[in-house]
Amino acid sequence: MIDDDGKNGTEDLENFDAAISAGEQDKVKEILDQMHPADASDLLEQMPTDEFEAVVALLDGELPTEILIELRDEYREDALEKLSDAAVVDAIDALESDDATTVLEDLGDDRRERILEGLAPVDRAVLAANLLYDEKTAGRLMQREFLSAPEFWTVGTTIDFARDNADDLPTDFYEVYVVDPGNRPIGFVLLSRLLRTERNVGLMDIMQPLQSDIRVEMDREEVAYQFQKYSLASAPVKDADGRLVGMITVDDMVHVIQDENTEDLLALLNVSSADGSDTVLESVWARAPWLGVNLVTAFIASGIIALFEGTLDKIVQLAILMPVVAALAGNAGSQGLAVAVRAIAERELDGDAQRRAVVRETLTGLVNGGIFAVSVGAVTLLWFRDPLLSTVIAVAMLLSFVWAGCSGILVPLTLKRFGADPAVASSVFVLTLTDVMAFLSFLGLASIWLI
Amino acid sequence: MIDDDGKNGTEDLENFDAAISAGEQDKVKEILDQMHPADASDLLEQMPTDEFEAVVALLDGELPTEILIELRDEYREDALEKLSDAAVVDAIDALESDDATTVLEDLGDDRRERILEGLAPVDRAVLAANLLYDEKTAGRLMQREFLSAPEFWTVGTTIDFARDNADDLPTDFYEVYVVDPGNRPIGFVLLSRLLRTERNVGLMDIMQPLQSDIRVEMDREEVAYQFQKYSLASAPVKDADGRLVGMITVDDMVHVIQDENTEDLLALLNVSSADGSDTVLESVWARAPWLGVNLVTAFIASGIIALFEGTLDKIVQLAILMPVVAALAGNAGSQGLAVAVRAIAERELDGDAQRRAVVRETLTGLVNGGIFAVSVGAVTLLWFRDPLLSTVIAVAMLLSFVWAGCSGILVPLTLKRFGADPAVASSVFVLTLTDVMAFLSFLGLASIWLI
Repeated sequence: MIDDDGKNGTEDLENFDAAISAGEQDKVKEILDQMHPADASDLLEQMPTDEFEAVVALLDGELPTEILIELRDEYREDALEKLSDAAVVDAIDALESDDATTVLEDLGDDRRERILEGLAPVDRAVLAANLLYDEKTAGRLMQREFLSAPEFWTVGTTIDFARDNADDLPTDFYEVYVVDPGNRPIGFVLLSRLLRTERNVGLMDIMQPLQSDIRVEMDREEVAYQFQKYSLASAPVKDADGRLVGMITVDDMVHVIQDENTEDLLALLNVSSADGSDTVLESVWARAPWLGVNLVTAFIASGIIALFEGTLDKIVQLAILMPVVAALAGNAGSQGLAVAVRAIAERELDGDAQRRAVVRETLTGLVNGGIFAVSVGAVTLLWFRDPLLSTVIAVAMLLSFVWAGCSGILVPLTLKRFGADPAVASSVFVLTLTDVMAFLSFLGLASIWLI
Repeated sequence: MIDDDGKNGTEDLENFDAAISAGEQDKVKEILDQMHPADASDLLEQMPTDEFEAVVALLDGELPTEILIELRDEYREDALEKLSDAAVVDAIDALESDDATTVLEDLGDDRRERILEGLAPVDRAVLAANLLYDEKTAGRLMQREFLSAPEFWTVGTTIDFARDNADDLPTDFYEVYVVDPGNRPIGFVLLSRLLRTERNVGLMDIMQPLQSDIRVEMDREEVAYQFQKYSLASAPVKDADGRLVGMITVDDMVHVIQDENTEDLLALLNVSSADGSDTVLESVWARAPWLGVNLVTAFIASGIIALFEGTLDKIVQLAILMPVVAALAGNAGSQGLAVAVRAIAERELDGDAQRRAVVRETLTGLVNGGIFAVSVGAVTLLWFRDPLLSTVIAVAMLLSFVWAGCSGILVPLTLKRFGADPAVASSVFVLTLTDVMAFLSFLGLASIWLI
């Protein structure tokens, strides 16, 4: 439950801190058990790292697995380091196979082998198989627990089977997969449909055809796209031969969608990764390489300016106005880039839509270029009372805006065509292109018309 | 099903185009009916606007409602304009209440009144009530159809009730809400749990306490946050008195999460909205206001440069190097901003984490500032062979980076504190602040040390 007034929260927190200081394992566990695992993990993540590690060490095997799996990646990895091997084996035993795989991913190679050894042979085989799939594929994300039924079953048979095998079924699931004799899924029945249908009705009569087509090796971004497109709550996963081997549920996809969006946003602003718990060194590492690229491109722009040293030497006003052209054109370029990256991510730019988008972006550059050519020209005229200087900056603005419009859409589309992520690196390209054009057109026109 | 080789797709498309050209309503409808509504809407959205409208007009009442509701907002609004009132009334009759509300939202006031008049009184009352809630609240998003059960029911009673009232239940749902005599939800039972429990077990014995706490007036962003945090497939919605009035399902929340992420990304790059089908005028309208703000801030930066006109006049190299300081510091500021906006959106910056983030960003600015002070200083020394100029740019870089680090985190936190969206307008602020600092420190130090 959400705690509206936050008062209980504060009191709990004090009790919790007191129990930790006193090293009272039972009390700490009791407080955590009373909370929703998501709330408990929030509480733990708000602690400074050393305190967090102390709590994990204090609880060891008593850290509830539901909380362990709710922790953000960095905290979970940290927690696993503090837990004994026996505690990790117990946790993996208690988790469903997708979550157990997540835990195993976090471990170093040696320790993972050791932990796998400690598991029952059948669990070990399943988890080792999951780990063979590439990271960020459906095979890694899926759980091996699901409910499937042969095509000749009725509603009654299915419900009876579920009651008899309650322990082997996953806690949350939303549909029954109907399979042919070769274990290939041919359709699904929503539990809400099963529930309201009479016992003697055959599954084949209420089955819907599969909407998704998810294979073990499919990239998680494509899986998330299918979940979004078909509004799925869960979906079956097939192996290379089309046999049903797992199930993915929407809660995992919500995280993938959030992750992919975050990656795009950070990439567009030149950060390679970010997390609330990053250290200064991690932050530097995630940003310095892009600043290094920018260092090169900034000096390229300087090189363009240096070509016009003589002109700048004669007319100092050019140095004052130069950044205005670059700033506005750069902004126009980033705007187009943001729109293009979004449209590519939502798969709106297929076929003819791509050509239409290029035309639209160029025309938008032309119209905005016109508007801001006039505005910047007017401000310049008022400031420096020089009609020719004002004309030079206006024409440079127009040229730079059209160029920015083209770059903003063509750079990400080109990156995509070459199989690269259109969000990564594109803003550095676009800004360099617009800077070069802004300085070249403004200073170039000035050296022709004003000297 | 996804069409891997795309060959069928092309053939279908040709048949489809032929049927449209020939005005064969039956054939067009038949082809659309065979497709998943999401695929059919994709097909329609890829058409140029006039062709799309022609298809809608051709089908009128025969346009399947499942397709209508799958269309992107712009296309659905367009389609509704082409449909007759009778066709819209029929569509609303066929839809669940959340989708029906979406359709009503798209209509103009007069037409909405007319359509509401055409509905059965009970439907009209429900939909009119939904429209009273603010846009982007839980009340607007929820559907009125759900399955609730009094606390004394057993698994058997619940299943029998669902079978007897199959027509009144929503197509997809994932849980049963247990309510007290005042119709207040006190817990829920997952269908997967109901299914595997014996008929004679009471709901109270298998019920889980509610995890979410969603009220009709709650903002959709908060609702989406609860869905993510507690991994919900659906959740009950309560009115002001805590009574159960609706249900929200995760597929709607997936769209909200995607929308909110898109809004942040666009806002950070100064675009107020974007859609694949935007016209040039819509694009200009979504971008020109921010460029207007940038026009003002760019001239503020120019004003700073103008303060040092005399210095620039004497040392033209300053004009050449000036944009390097501004570009790199601006980039560092945007990086910090992206990280901060992400952390705020994920609610990682609460309490003490906020203070830690400010410290981290400042130190990151210091470290990266140090690295790039040395690099830029070295390049400048190699280029201009002037140790003093090189020192000036190095010190200016360091100052600007620390300043950029502080701005990148403090601007969004301040906007958030004043209740504004931290993604909107913050990049303009941050870039202006870094530009001013870059020009002021570089030209200022130059006029003290070099003149």
